Amino acid sequence: MALDCARQAAEAGEVPIGAVITRQGDVIAQGENRNRRDNDPTAHAEIVAMRAACALLGQDRLTDCDLWVTLEPCPMCAGAIAHARIARLYYGAADPKGGGVEHGARVFAHPQCHHRPEIFPGIGEESSARLLRDFFAIRR
Amino acid sequence: MALDCARQAAEAGEVPIGAVITRQGDVIAQGENRNRRDNDPTAHAEIVAMRAACALLGQDRLTDCDLWVTLEPCPMCAGAIAHARIARLYYGAADPKGGGVEHGARVFAHPQCHHRPEIFPGIGEESSARLLRDFFAIRR
Repeated sequence: MALDCARQAAEAGEVPIGAVITRQGDVIAQGENRNRRDNDPTAHAEIVAMRAACALLGQDRLTDCDLWVTLEPCPMCAGAIAHARIARLYYGAADPKGGGVEHGARVFAHPQCHHRPEIFPGIGEESSARLLRDFFAIRR
Repeated sequence: MALDCARQAAEAGEVPIGAVITRQGDVIAQGENRNRRDNDPTAHAEIVAMRAACALLGQDRLTDCDLWVTLEPCPMCAGAIAHARIARLYYGAADPKGGGVEHGARVFAHPQCHHRPEIFPGIGEESSARLLRDFFAIRR
């Protein structure tokens, strides 16, 4: 489902990244990159999905929720995941240039980080990476 | 003006942090923490202000804009500042526990960070810190 969100983003001319929030096994929200459409530098798939889930639940924490996203979250999204208290983070492709989990600022690795989700990388990695490669291959 | 935003947040029961965006010397947007009111873990003062500025300008970058905020930005907000291409970051109190600029993940210090603003810490530091101390002293 997150890959489908990523494909929809590509069709809209946005960087193809998609995210889904589940709660006790049920999908409660999804998101895709909307930076250009929404004129919003914070509108990454993860944040779009988390804001939708919070609006649905009427709370600013997602303590018993899991986040599934096609790409390693950037530092902004990793920080938002910590603030939202997401329980488990599942992601697809690694992002050596823009990631903030296993690359770059490694937001969850610092002792000051107030919440660290359980992290499961490499879920649907090849499909996630291919979507991004194909998208940028056309544009460069 | 950022301190006034922080005071308004406190009156609403939110953590007292305020932010202002300027462009060529003019204030174009402001923000205060709205996490609880908006049920939004991303609604920190900086992000509220940046989203408002982007909506006003009809673009997802704030290349010629400066951000003034009463507290050292967290990793989420530092990441958003990099995405928005904010030119200059002025902030008040340091945040040894939650900061992501001179503390913790130090988002701008990593070679993978794609944009680093000019950074000016300690602006109105004592007033910014006092607001937070007073707010938490009542609650703890």
